[in-house]
Amino acid sequence: MDKTMFDAALSKLKADYKAIAERKNEVDITWYNGVYDRYKYPVLTNANIPLTWRYDMNYERNPYLLERIGANAAFNSGAIFHDGKYVLVVRVEGNDRKSYFAVARSENGIDNFVFDKYPVRLPQTDEIDTNVYDMRLTKHEDGWIYGLFCSERKDKTNPDTSAAVAKCGIVRTKDLVNWERLPDLDSKNQQRNVVLHPEFVDGKYMLYTRPSDGFIDVGGGGGIGCALIDDMTKATLGEELIIDKKVYHTIKEVKNGAGATPIKTKYGWLHIVHGVRNTAAGLRYVIYCFMTSLEDPRKVIYTPGGHLIAPVGEERIGDVSNVVFTNGAIEKDGNIYIYYASSDTRLHLATTTVEKMVDYCKNTPQDGYTTHTSVDAICRLVDMNDKN
Amino acid sequence: MDKTMFDAALSKLKADYKAIAERKNEVDITWYNGVYDRYKYPVLTNANIPLTWRYDMNYERNPYLLERIGANAAFNSGAIFHDGKYVLVVRVEGNDRKSYFAVARSENGIDNFVFDKYPVRLPQTDEIDTNVYDMRLTKHEDGWIYGLFCSERKDKTNPDTSAAVAKCGIVRTKDLVNWERLPDLDSKNQQRNVVLHPEFVDGKYMLYTRPSDGFIDVGGGGGIGCALIDDMTKATLGEELIIDKKVYHTIKEVKNGAGATPIKTKYGWLHIVHGVRNTAAGLRYVIYCFMTSLEDPRKVIYTPGGHLIAPVGEERIGDVSNVVFTNGAIEKDGNIYIYYASSDTRLHLATTTVEKMVDYCKNTPQDGYTTHTSVDAICRLVDMNDKN
Repeated sequence: MDKTMFDAALSKLKADYKAIAERKNEVDITWYNGVYDRYKYPVLTNANIPLTWRYDMNYERNPYLLERIGANAAFNSGAIFHDGKYVLVVRVEGNDRKSYFAVARSENGIDNFVFDKYPVRLPQTDEIDTNVYDMRLTKHEDGWIYGLFCSERKDKTNPDTSAAVAKCGIVRTKDLVNWERLPDLDSKNQQRNVVLHPEFVDGKYMLYTRPSDGFIDVGGGGGIGCALIDDMTKATLGEELIIDKKVYHTIKEVKNGAGATPIKTKYGWLHIVHGVRNTAAGLRYVIYCFMTSLEDPRKVIYTPGGHLIAPVGEERIGDVSNVVFTNGAIEKDGNIYIYYASSDTRLHLATTTVEKMVDYCKNTPQDGYTTHTSVDAICRLVDMNDKN
Repeated sequence: MDKTMFDAALSKLKADYKAIAERKNEVDITWYNGVYDRYKYPVLTNANIPLTWRYDMNYERNPYLLERIGANAAFNSGAIFHDGKYVLVVRVEGNDRKSYFAVARSENGIDNFVFDKYPVRLPQTDEIDTNVYDMRLTKHEDGWIYGLFCSERKDKTNPDTSAAVAKCGIVRTKDLVNWERLPDLDSKNQQRNVVLHPEFVDGKYMLYTRPSDGFIDVGGGGGIGCALIDDMTKATLGEELIIDKKVYHTIKEVKNGAGATPIKTKYGWLHIVHGVRNTAAGLRYVIYCFMTSLEDPRKVIYTPGGHLIAPVGEERIGDVSNVVFTNGAIEKDGNIYIYYASSDTRLHLATTTVEKMVDYCKNTPQDGYTTHTSVDAICRLVDMNDKN
């Protein structure tokens, strides 16, 4: 195209970008369950990835204004309140299927997230990461912000071109700009969905883990585990204690894993996590929660039955359909911002409060593991409403 | 929230419920194939589940008006005309993934289905059901209404947390209020999709079965079978005769199973059933039909090729996408109401007539099992239209 057309196309591209990046978000009034609000628009999609990361805007070098580096998706994000802003460390996936991290900051946690100038230039270990994703951010009482993520590399012992080895990669930072890479978690099993607890437990660091985790195929046992670590600069996984098991015919029948970094409330630690079941159309990922004790965060105190968030509407469809997933939530002044991704494609927001979530955790009937206990719970509720 | 806000939120919740529960349904005029009409709105979704089953409406006990027991889906429904009403026994799935049965009744079979006060409190056998689903209702000539359903329990011989054993559970009732549980069908194989034929055959009860059925993995042989049973109060499965086989590269390549209780017409028994094939995105379930002889209901007389109903539009997507399934249809005064669910999420209605369905079964070309026979059939039709 000629320079005039190029300039017009570029102006339109920038205007379209601005319209999306600066769009005011609002509560979706078509959704109600009392527990949380859903927001109308995704917080981020691939359309929010900066144009400077995708287009060469020089007419001589790119006369057709082609996208040079496509951004396929923006989804599973770590989240933290830092320096007066709601900060996401977004999993961005390029058209080449490699994920990387990108920092986006917002004044209100709801809209107008602005990406830093560059994506995160993650330092490497000696063994280069093929892919990195799903960072959990923890402001630890030792003074560092830790980012634990999944680092994936080819399983060289397996001739299958898709065979992977998943490890827990570890970085730390003070400012979410400069990142120090620490050695990967030393574990005899593969590890994904590892989260660092924000406080010392028995004077040690505590990780949420997934014992005996294969890469996609997970075994018969397992669940969300806990393990104490002496030193995050050479983290070695010892004994793991399962605190939340997989159970037959529940939303976490096939696998489950830690999600957002646990939120401290005066009633206990709030865990917002994910569970997976199988279906005739592939796996289904939902978000559920439980609470653990302030005295001993390994002790589960409330287990509301069933899912907290399941995909609805457009959330159901994406690169990996039938998935909602969270690896980041922010508590600020009693409000909770749950950043959850749908179908490995886009990032959404659900907002609630500490009071509501604690009420939900305390008063939602536990899963009784049979249809009869579920029906009993409903009949009791009908009777309570009768006497109301 | 304060009491005034609570009252306002509760009023809105009730008004929104009423709008959905009492919405008039109508034929979807964007669909036409002559064989049946589709209805514009689902007959039931999780939004139709009574508020008294989901919310504690007492301000002191539930000051945030949180949903206490979520209803995730309302789908595969048994159906029967009883006491002047069109009655569904709906499979409702809670957020905890347990399914249970709920009776909903309508004056016209099309809209305004009203749920009974409580879900069905299904009596148990000695071995408690973990999950129950997909009830087929049969008004048998012995005077009882039987409900045959799938009862699922953990396979304790398998360490995989998702390994299940599926049996055919049996209840009977006179009024669709009081249910008598009979012993599960005694079968050496797992059984789902078992349906009771409405009449005695050779002086015995007759079941439609699925021989050699694993839980999800089905074997190489098999299809829809028939078996005679001496006594429904201690039903024991003997010899099974396959009447409708699975066939390579058809809509029932991977599995098939009985659907709605067969409808008696003067031209034969009409069977509305389901077939399954595999795809890169999981299994695809469609509805097809065939007819059997009045003289011997085990003898197939018409086999129209291909599917009768496949998912369209929003039906394609749900908790288990790419599925339409029926386990209930009602014939009344020559009209047929096919209640079919889409993607394990919601229940729809298709209406037709006995005359249309018999014409469809007689005159739709049979599956010739090759592309060439399909093309030949089309060319013959083109020629017939030429001479028209």
